[in-house]
Amino acid sequence: MEYPKRLRRLRKKMTDAGWEALLVTHLPDVRYLCAFTGSNAVLAVTARRAVLFTDGRYTSQAREEAVGVRIVIGKQALAEACELLSGLGVAVAHYDPDHVTIAELQRMQAALGASVSKVAKRRFFQPAAPYPLPALREIKDDDELAHLEAAAQLGCRLFDTVIPHIEAGTPEREVAAELEFFARSLGADGMSFDTIVASGVRSSFPHGTASSQPLPRKGFVTLDFGVILRGYCSDMTRTVYLGRPTREESSAYDAVLEAQETAVSAVQVGVATGEIDEAARSVLHRAKLARYFIHSTGHGVGMEIHEGPRLAAKQQQPLAAGMVVTIEPGIYLPGRFGIRIEDMVAVTNDGGRVLTPSTKALLRL
Amino acid sequence: MEYPKRLRRLRKKMTDAGWEALLVTHLPDVRYLCAFTGSNAVLAVTARRAVLFTDGRYTSQAREEAVGVRIVIGKQALAEACELLSGLGVAVAHYDPDHVTIAELQRMQAALGASVSKVAKRRFFQPAAPYPLPALREIKDDDELAHLEAAAQLGCRLFDTVIPHIEAGTPEREVAAELEFFARSLGADGMSFDTIVASGVRSSFPHGTASSQPLPRKGFVTLDFGVILRGYCSDMTRTVYLGRPTREESSAYDAVLEAQETAVSAVQVGVATGEIDEAARSVLHRAKLARYFIHSTGHGVGMEIHEGPRLAAKQQQPLAAGMVVTIEPGIYLPGRFGIRIEDMVAVTNDGGRVLTPSTKALLRL
Repeated sequence: MEYPKRLRRLRKKMTDAGWEALLVTHLPDVRYLCAFTGSNAVLAVTARRAVLFTDGRYTSQAREEAVGVRIVIGKQALAEACELLSGLGVAVAHYDPDHVTIAELQRMQAALGASVSKVAKRRFFQPAAPYPLPALREIKDDDELAHLEAAAQLGCRLFDTVIPHIEAGTPEREVAAELEFFARSLGADGMSFDTIVASGVRSSFPHGTASSQPLPRKGFVTLDFGVILRGYCSDMTRTVYLGRPTREESSAYDAVLEAQETAVSAVQVGVATGEIDEAARSVLHRAKLARYFIHSTGHGVGMEIHEGPRLAAKQQQPLAAGMVVTIEPGIYLPGRFGIRIEDMVAVTNDGGRVLTPSTKALLRL
Repeated sequence: MEYPKRLRRLRKKMTDAGWEALLVTHLPDVRYLCAFTGSNAVLAVTARRAVLFTDGRYTSQAREEAVGVRIVIGKQALAEACELLSGLGVAVAHYDPDHVTIAELQRMQAALGASVSKVAKRRFFQPAAPYPLPALREIKDDDELAHLEAAAQLGCRLFDTVIPHIEAGTPEREVAAELEFFARSLGADGMSFDTIVASGVRSSFPHGTASSQPLPRKGFVTLDFGVILRGYCSDMTRTVYLGRPTREESSAYDAVLEAQETAVSAVQVGVATGEIDEAARSVLHRAKLARYFIHSTGHGVGMEIHEGPRLAAKQQQPLAAGMVVTIEPGIYLPGRFGIRIEDMVAVTNDGGRVLTPSTKALLRL
């Protein structure tokens, strides 16, 4: 992994913004910058220093994993990082307003000690606007693309593996169990979110995690799942059919598939993410199904299952080479059925490259 | 579940503190108060109202699940909750400083509109100190105790199930896969944290999640795992041995077991949590192993895997009937081996009741 390069890019952003010091407190950001995976970590970054604070549970692990940082083992990582910056004579330390809570900011201020005035404490800590890590992490480097592709391929293998288990009468949860067992067996660290197996009327719940309900003899089954492989997430959705679909169900499926493929084809460097959303939405609009498409078209994916950019209505952000996004239009007819189809797509200079090539033809099982 | 009673208790705390309105933003707190399990929810509570804000993905689910609240479907749950409170003429709304981020507080303030002055916006939102939900949730009601006991029993069944899979050469991750598969098959919603299977030298990592490393022919294997069953978490640890332990390893195991059992026996209503920690620590001190016990003795468990109270050195909080805590002393000899033994224990008027009665004798496999 290209850790030194990532830290250099961060420092460039800090210099451009005129920031002396940045507190990195969100664990995936810490991992991104220095490879440490412990559950307690704060990284303090200045132009010349990068110091990782964690606790005694992680002494060996930090030494094994952390790249390009000095390691400090203590009891109060956050307070100790603040003390260090204050001791270095830093005037202002910037922090991540999306992850620092009010209580944490109070603790950060308290760490400066009783001799520092309230006003000086307030001035010392400033929210970074924008906090630079999400934008850095949106653009995946080559190592990350390789990891994401491997995770996506594992997802596709799982889909193939689970198909024989999709049978009327099998509880949704058992389908999820098979899928997760194979994920582990094939080397996954775990699942990237609660596996969704939503069948029959439950397929009309966009977030119907696997329940004890048996699969019906007839109806859609939506499978939405992802693995974590070497720290990177996959995310894919396929909707299959048990029995023979009605004409209405078939044409609804075709419309969602056309919407999904149209959006995938629209992926180009420089295109606004809102246009990708619109590409999917307009197909469903023509099919008179747009009012059932009640979420956005997709999101970035990386070390976290939900990262930037957002592929949603009116978003102006242009796609850039190195982004990896999901494209996942779906429709949900309350009390009836739902359909969603989702791929992971890497944005390249030659357009979108689908990382999850499992078939999207309607499988009738 | 006793939702109306919970809301009544919360309102009592609000009255005692002199608070007109409380914003509940942490999802497990929302679920605790009104049963809604969606991934986007804010609950606004006043003396007369309880209003749940979520989005269109959850229209059906909110209607099905939510108890004792009015439901508002919108696009910006947090902002809409703030607008409601402001519109009701509330003077001050209290919020949860441990879960509201700086960016969220900024959005909350912005929701009051451009006509409200900066100073008035700041005054309108005040951190609740202490925020009452953690203390309410520490004391489990009868429904919750039943759920926690069922989850803990499922954990014990999993331990029995996985024992035959603990063999030299089997990758740690495959042991985790078996365990998680059976968890799902037996009805678990999922695992309550990343399953730890740490063998050989890796057992000296307190947080060694299952790796691709094959189990050794000889050495300790620590299994620390938990399920989520109907929304409630289990948590237990057993350490077994592959082959024949040395005398040093055996007596280290005996010391940890004695420390654990001594701490369990110390559980009584009114005893300070720090005394439970001390009970475990003093046994290890006598065995000259206390310096390897590098974490606290335990924590509360409920809808979340880590809740109050903390069982740590010098903590003054008294144990109360209805608390459910883990008791999990462990020792970690760097580069050599580690041992941890953990039970879930319910605090009752008759002392501690162990919810995870799996054997703690050293299993030699």
